[in-house]
Amino acid sequence: MALKTKHPIGILGATGMVGQRFIQLLENHPWFEVAWLAASDRSSGKLYGEAAKWRLDTPLPERIARMTVQPADPAGAPKIIFAALDAAFARELEPAFANAGCAVVSNSSAYRMAPNVPLVIPEINAEHLHLIEEQPSRAESGGYMVTNPNCSTIGLVMALKPIEARFGIEKIFVTTMQAVSGAGYPGVPSMDILGNVVPYIGSEEEKMEAETLKLLGKLNVHVVTPLDAKISAQCNRVAVEDGHT
Amino acid sequence: MALKTKHPIGILGATGMVGQRFIQLLENHPWFEVAWLAASDRSSGKLYGEAAKWRLDTPLPERIARMTVQPADPAGAPKIIFAALDAAFARELEPAFANAGCAVVSNSSAYRMAPNVPLVIPEINAEHLHLIEEQPSRAESGGYMVTNPNCSTIGLVMALKPIEARFGIEKIFVTTMQAVSGAGYPGVPSMDILGNVVPYIGSEEEKMEAETLKLLGKLNVHVVTPLDAKISAQCNRVAVEDGHT
Amino acid sequence: MALKTKHPIGILGATGMVGQRFIQLLENHPWFEVAWLAASDRSSGKLYGEAAKWRLDTPLPERIARMTVQPADPAGAPKIIFAALDAAFARELEPAFANAGCAVVSNSSAYRMAPNVPLVIPEINAEHLHLIEEQPSRAESGGYMVTNPNCSTIGLVMALKPIEARFGIEKIFVTTMQAVSGAGYPGVPSMDILGNVVPYIGSEEEKMEAETLKLLGKLNVHVVTPLDAKISAQCNRVAVEDGHT
Amino acid sequence: MALKTKHPIGILGATGMVGQRFIQLLENHPWFEVAWLAASDRSSGKLYGEAAKWRLDTPLPERIARMTVQPADPAGAPKIIFAALDAAFARELEPAFANAGCAVVSNSSAYRMAPNVPLVIPEINAEHLHLIEEQPSRAESGGYMVTNPNCSTIGLVMALKPIEARFGIEKIFVTTMQAVSGAGYPGVPSMDILGNVVPYIGSEEEKMEAETLKLLGKLNVHVVTPLDAKISAQCNRVAVEDGHT
Repeated sequence: MALKTKHPIGILGATGMVGQRFIQLLENHPWFEVAWLAASDRSSGKLYGEAAKWRLDTPLPERIARMTVQPADPAGAPKIIFAALDAAFARELEPAFANAGCAVVSNSSAYRMAPNVPLVIPEINAEHLHLIEEQPSRAESGGYMVTNPNCSTIGLVMALKPIEARFGIEKIFVTTMQAVSGAGYPGVPSMDILGNVVPYIGSEEEKMEAETLKLLGKLNVHVVTPLDAKISAQCNRVAVEDGHT
Repeated sequence: MALKTKHPIGILGATGMVGQRFIQLLENHPWFEVAWLAASDRSSGKLYGEAAKWRLDTPLPERIARMTVQPADPAGAPKIIFAALDAAFARELEPAFANAGCAVVSNSSAYRMAPNVPLVIPEINAEHLHLIEEQPSRAESGGYMVTNPNCSTIGLVMALKPIEARFGIEKIFVTTMQAVSGAGYPGVPSMDILGNVVPYIGSEEEKMEAETLKLLGKLNVHVVTPLDAKISAQCNRVAVEDGHT
Repeated sequence: MALKTKHPIGILGATGMVGQRFIQLLENHPWFEVAWLAASDRSSGKLYGEAAKWRLDTPLPERIARMTVQPADPAGAPKIIFAALDAAFARELEPAFANAGCAVVSNSSAYRMAPNVPLVIPEINAEHLHLIEEQPSRAESGGYMVTNPNCSTIGLVMALKPIEARFGIEKIFVTTMQAVSGAGYPGVPSMDILGNVVPYIGSEEEKMEAETLKLLGKLNVHVVTPLDAKISAQCNRVAVEDGHT
Repeated sequence: MALKTKHPIGILGATGMVGQRFIQLLENHPWFEVAWLAASDRSSGKLYGEAAKWRLDTPLPERIARMTVQPADPAGAPKIIFAALDAAFARELEPAFANAGCAVVSNSSAYRMAPNVPLVIPEINAEHLHLIEEQPSRAESGGYMVTNPNCSTIGLVMALKPIEARFGIEKIFVTTMQAVSGAGYPGVPSMDILGNVVPYIGSEEEKMEAETLKLLGKLNVHVVTPLDAKISAQCNRVAVEDGHT
């Protein structure tokens, strides 16, 4: 169902790989319209088409290319923000936008495990969204933060949820084989991955273990109690362009 | 320690990938000397250098290249046979050589799980070799069969054995990422593996599960009782030339 | 411009990689409708969905999956045939269909260099289609054969034509780096191409050289005189899934 | 022939990929002994084993690991220097070492095309070494510079030289397919090369063209006159770990 008047949205970290993917996926979206693009000082003030090195298969939309990149500041930003920041920047900027009254939907790992921030896969645990009410900014400015999980975690939890619901789960062993695109650009050096499997992705295993238990946890009014199960994740990088296994 | 007089040995299936590897590894061996090469009717009667398409990095030894490939028949074969046959041929030929008095050391899966055939990793379960005495050919002609495990199983059991010895093992979960060389030549089509992980290797998971339990099993005079543990293996093919993970 | 009544067409060699590509590209075509699928004795009589192992990214159209594969015989075939046969089969079957009154558009190399068969890239040498009139079948049954060039040749000639038209060409040196998909399935063994460049593609260089000169040749009423230039092609296979360079 | 007393040599840029390769190749060399290792300020003062991230297949020799990395200064350096510097650093440092009396054998492109610096493949144009006498440092301190060609150029000129000697050469067309190792580490991002051919290597084509003509040139007492031929090079990066085609 398309809306008569679309919601204007902003993208924080618009020039990076994840920001580009947001732009690609939101083009012609029935509900949302990209109205504001922000990035680091190196890019702000330039036209997006000049500031970003577009790396996706589909062409950069003309309208986006001609938008001016804004500084990463809540002043002038729309009320809905899709955040595509590195964790270090996200740690500082996402609360600033929430405090200024924005709904911040974050792709970063910075606040996924914060007790009052929902970590959500809509099909799995939409009820965790009530955690928003525990965020101080919600009462003060109406703003709040919501996060989505690590890419590998999403596929895992989609498969585990019906098993957990029907039988319960005591132990989880998971091994991933992940594409190089997940490491961003330039990311994995080709000398490391050609003819090789890299059996380590920095902090990916910790994320996968912690996030899975939170996603499968129960909401108890003010807090999510993680699933009481043992979990062990082994994450490997393989010579595949796109798509995780 | 080198022997003054080396044992002459024969290779069954000498022209295939495994047979070539036997030739490569036995060149200049201190105990064994390759004295007899046998292969299918298509190759027998030809010089080895003409019959085999040598695919290894090291050069084919001149002496081997000039040897005539023999038919796969025990008549005229040495007393020690390294067998590098496809399972279908092994099922028929290996007992024939054992019955004719040969010690058959097999790289095939055909008889690995037979109750009276030892499946051996020398560092792990050399005592299983006593199973040889349970083979009828042993009394009749002196001949017998010994097998080695699937390639992926070897690395796994080398790691599990000390854990089992010290703590015992109840459950085993294992995921492999295996190189294309394990599938022989021509093996995996490049269209299947470039930019991909193939999450299935025919009957590899079954072999890995059954062989691991037999290798970690206890010899009780006439029989090996497999380890009483649950095991689940997932075997994947990845775009790597050589070496399993 | 879409036609009110589409032309029914048939595909010879419908189950192979090229046949599948024809089906994919002709789905929803404004002029043509796939009405007849033929393949070897191994497949004929079965439903297409059972006979063909579909390997393309887009789904096999339901309507096609339920069509019965016909024997490769002109009886009952439509008047327009897209032929996707190996050269050996094409040599025999394509003239049979032309003699039976069909317009045979061939993707095979079998008759590309025949003096009375047009080898055509529409943007380059559409006038060569007059060669059809030199084919005996044209007068007898109305049927005829038309061929398209080797895949690598097309890109080359598209680039050379304007240069030839404006300046003339005396010598051509061309080097290709071709994807594994061009070798069909199973095609190139992964052990040959991972971490490698294969500097030889059987008969590809000869095709590229001969076809380029014919495509750039002049039609002189009954015959095409090839371009009078020297040409040298080097064709390499590289570890790329799709797309030639 | 091994020397009784080996020549002590130094390596400039010892921690990089080329420097590591020098160490690997000079280990157990019959004439030379690595006696001095220098690198940038970031590494100097540390033990080599701590300063360098060793990336080669063979182990880092223990003796080398325990050597202290020196600053890149001629004071204290041996009389023979193998230089493995980026061109920008080479431009400054190589003449400084030559002026200080060292024989500098350079792997960098900085001075390959300088009129008084020999660019040499020993099998091809050893007589070009007389250019050393044209360097002012030669008379002043005894020091001088010698360079070797771009990696791709070496294979090309080895093939061209006998043709040039026997028939002469008027035109050269060359296309390369080069491994990712040639770009150093981290070098080519895996997202750029997996499933791809990159038809551009920065300034590689210019080097290959100019260096080939100089290598095949004639020494006329004080100067080398480059070969009078037309040359066109196209350099491509392919998904191969090691080795150029």
